[in-house]
Amino acid sequence: MAFGWIDEQAEQRRRAGLVRTLRPRPADSPLLDLASNDYLGLAHHPEVAEGAAGAARTWGGGSTGSRLVTGTTELHTELERELAGFCGFEAALVFSSGYAANLAAVTTLGPHGSLIVSDALNHASLIDGCRLARGATQVVGHADPDAVRKALGTHEGPAVAVSDTVFSVDGDAAPLAALAEACREHGAGLLVDDAHGLGVLGDGGRGAPYAAGLSGADDVVVTATLSKSLGSQGGVVLGPARVIDHLVNAARTFIFDTGLAPAAAGAALAALRLLRREPARAARAREVAAELHARLTAAGLEAVRPDAAVVSVRAPSPEQAVRWAGDCRTAGLAVGCFRPPSVPDGISRLRLTARADLSGAEIERAVRVIGKTRP
Amino acid sequence: MAFGWIDEQAEQRRRAGLVRTLRPRPADSPLLDLASNDYLGLAHHPEVAEGAAGAARTWGGGSTGSRLVTGTTELHTELERELAGFCGFEAALVFSSGYAANLAAVTTLGPHGSLIVSDALNHASLIDGCRLARGATQVVGHADPDAVRKALGTHEGPAVAVSDTVFSVDGDAAPLAALAEACREHGAGLLVDDAHGLGVLGDGGRGAPYAAGLSGADDVVVTATLSKSLGSQGGVVLGPARVIDHLVNAARTFIFDTGLAPAAAGAALAALRLLRREPARAARAREVAAELHARLTAAGLEAVRPDAAVVSVRAPSPEQAVRWAGDCRTAGLAVGCFRPPSVPDGISRLRLTARADLSGAEIERAVRVIGKTRP
Ligand SMILES: Cc1ncc(COP(=O)(O)O)c(C=O)c1O
Ligand SMILES: Cc1ncc(COP(=O)(O)O)c(C=O)c1O
Repeated sequence: MAFGWIDEQAEQRRRAGLVRTLRPRPADSPLLDLASNDYLGLAHHPEVAEGAAGAARTWGGGSTGSRLVTGTTELHTELERELAGFCGFEAALVFSSGYAANLAAVTTLGPHGSLIVSDALNHASLIDGCRLARGATQVVGHADPDAVRKALGTHEGPAVAVSDTVFSVDGDAAPLAALAEACREHGAGLLVDDAHGLGVLGDGGRGAPYAAGLSGADDVVVTATLSKSLGSQGGVVLGPARVIDHLVNAARTFIFDTGLAPAAAGAALAALRLLRREPARAARAREVAAELHARLTAAGLEAVRPDAAVVSVRAPSPEQAVRWAGDCRTAGLAVGCFRPPSVPDGISRLRLTARADLSGAEIERAVRVIGKTRP
Repeated sequence: MAFGWIDEQAEQRRRAGLVRTLRPRPADSPLLDLASNDYLGLAHHPEVAEGAAGAARTWGGGSTGSRLVTGTTELHTELERELAGFCGFEAALVFSSGYAANLAAVTTLGPHGSLIVSDALNHASLIDGCRLARGATQVVGHADPDAVRKALGTHEGPAVAVSDTVFSVDGDAAPLAALAEACREHGAGLLVDDAHGLGVLGDGGRGAPYAAGLSGADDVVVTATLSKSLGSQGGVVLGPARVIDHLVNAARTFIFDTGLAPAAAGAALAALRLLRREPARAARAREVAAELHARLTAAGLEAVRPDAAVVSVRAPSPEQAVRWAGDCRTAGLAVGCFRPPSVPDGISRLRLTARADLSGAEIERAVRVIGKTRP
């Protein structure tokens, strides 16, 4: 049969205990949420929901076409202007997802004849960008500016180093300033994915590049997502106007994709304005992460010190990670469970996210449950 | 300078007259729209806008995580159930865009050791899927089942043929029944992208595979987008439950992407229910297309006979296509303008879309403007 080979793979997954199933949640889930990427607690904020609702009423359910045909509304432009201003870049371009933004940035900045130097633990979307790009990719050790320097030294012509700013699995930060230095020594560009930094790091949540003094630099391009701190959907590329123009003209996931839905643009814009008005949300997310880490460590758990709002806790095996996360859920706590093949290093862990709107009592309760259910 | 090479490319584009710029539209654009992919006129329907608004209020501005973590709500499941039921497939899986759905379907159905046979005029997202897939791709002539048969005959092991159902540029339909026959002779799967068929072709808009009697077949997988006839954003893969399970476990643009925003899911669901209630919208879109074609031809223009709701009109050159579309715009008519490098065959054209809610007078006016401004 045509797709018969699928059954063999399914059987292998079953045997390895790696079957994934969807668990639809109700609107009024009673679980304490430490699993979402809603770092600032904005996804359910009434102003964000109203931002979505109002935009859908004014602009319709969809953007109706490619951004280059009918898919660019004045709402998109407004969002792009405010995102660029907030993060300190000359220009911004909004995509239907962070994934699409990363594919666009890597493929257009890594053309034929160029070198792309990519951190070994980069996000899947950056990796897929490298695979789609016409340039040659060299993967280097994790968070290693010297390795980047060395790789760049082997190449003549356009080159770009690519890294997450905050790595999605362990929540550790990239050495941005040192990476920029390595790139500058070789006249290379630096492309960083601030998906987990925007809204959490930098003054008032302006992001990791802002915190590292790289905002607005003519050799730095930043991607980010509207789906985490900004509680919506979509992606963005921030950088010099000439880079953004280049993307408009060359990025396949921009040209051949329907523009971001107005409701998503409206929600992200509302969240951004909320964050500007309440900049303490960013620091609070970091505080919650630090408190989570301190309490987990005090309870004898092996947690990675958080550089942003992700706290990763090691589990002894994939099976035990799944069991652990399941027991947390039974006890009323939702946590992420990362395991092969979706962790590049093969290490299974619980992944906790520090929401800015978690109370002290909720943090305590979460740590109590995680400690009690440990393998 | 790091990104200095970009300026050379920009200069080349300028010299070739191929610069693209964004033209943001206001909410109350006075233009007659024959450029969007809003085939059924549902993007601005109040029920669709309310579908988005209500979902954002109930479920929040974003889905807050990967579909495998917190990103699956009961709303997603409901949408998937209704899409599968409507199109006649066992199961469905919703993505953040049609682009992401295509990347997912091609990469997971074209694994290492497999053969992917791809139509020469397939959409960019299918092509990128082929480039990301671990299987070998063989590109065959456009709409040529014999070429597909021949290509499949050269390969042992898993194989899949990939095609648009309605090609996005010229609006011509693929020979689906003959393609399915060619695939079956070789035990290969058939994967078709019904982005421009869903809502327009088949009984009540159930899509091109439904019209060809292929719905629910165990060797057929369909992708579609929620961003055209359904007036929203997002993508979907439809097929046998085992294929959908396989995607949940293996598709990178599913696993590593934030789930579709609730507002987009809500808008698409509202549009789908509207279409079920008012199935004549599908036939009306086809009627409008036929009338557009007849009137354009009568006016001496070179238009491709439409198989769905896209009507393509040849232009003598890229420059004249741009000038023509610009003159239409000045005269109050928005039309699409497709030219290199975003047309695989190098031919420039105006691309008109037949909306179900265009009146006879609007069709007449559109044809008058196009005729008067012709190069
Ligand atoms: C580091 C990183 N980059 C990009 C993405 C993709 O963003 P989106 O979900 O908006 O497509 C994610 C997660 O979803 C991520 O964790
Ligand atoms: C044939 C075809 N497939 C896929 C897509 C991508 O769908 P989406 O815009 O929802 O990403 C498009 C256009 O956008 C298309 O024309």
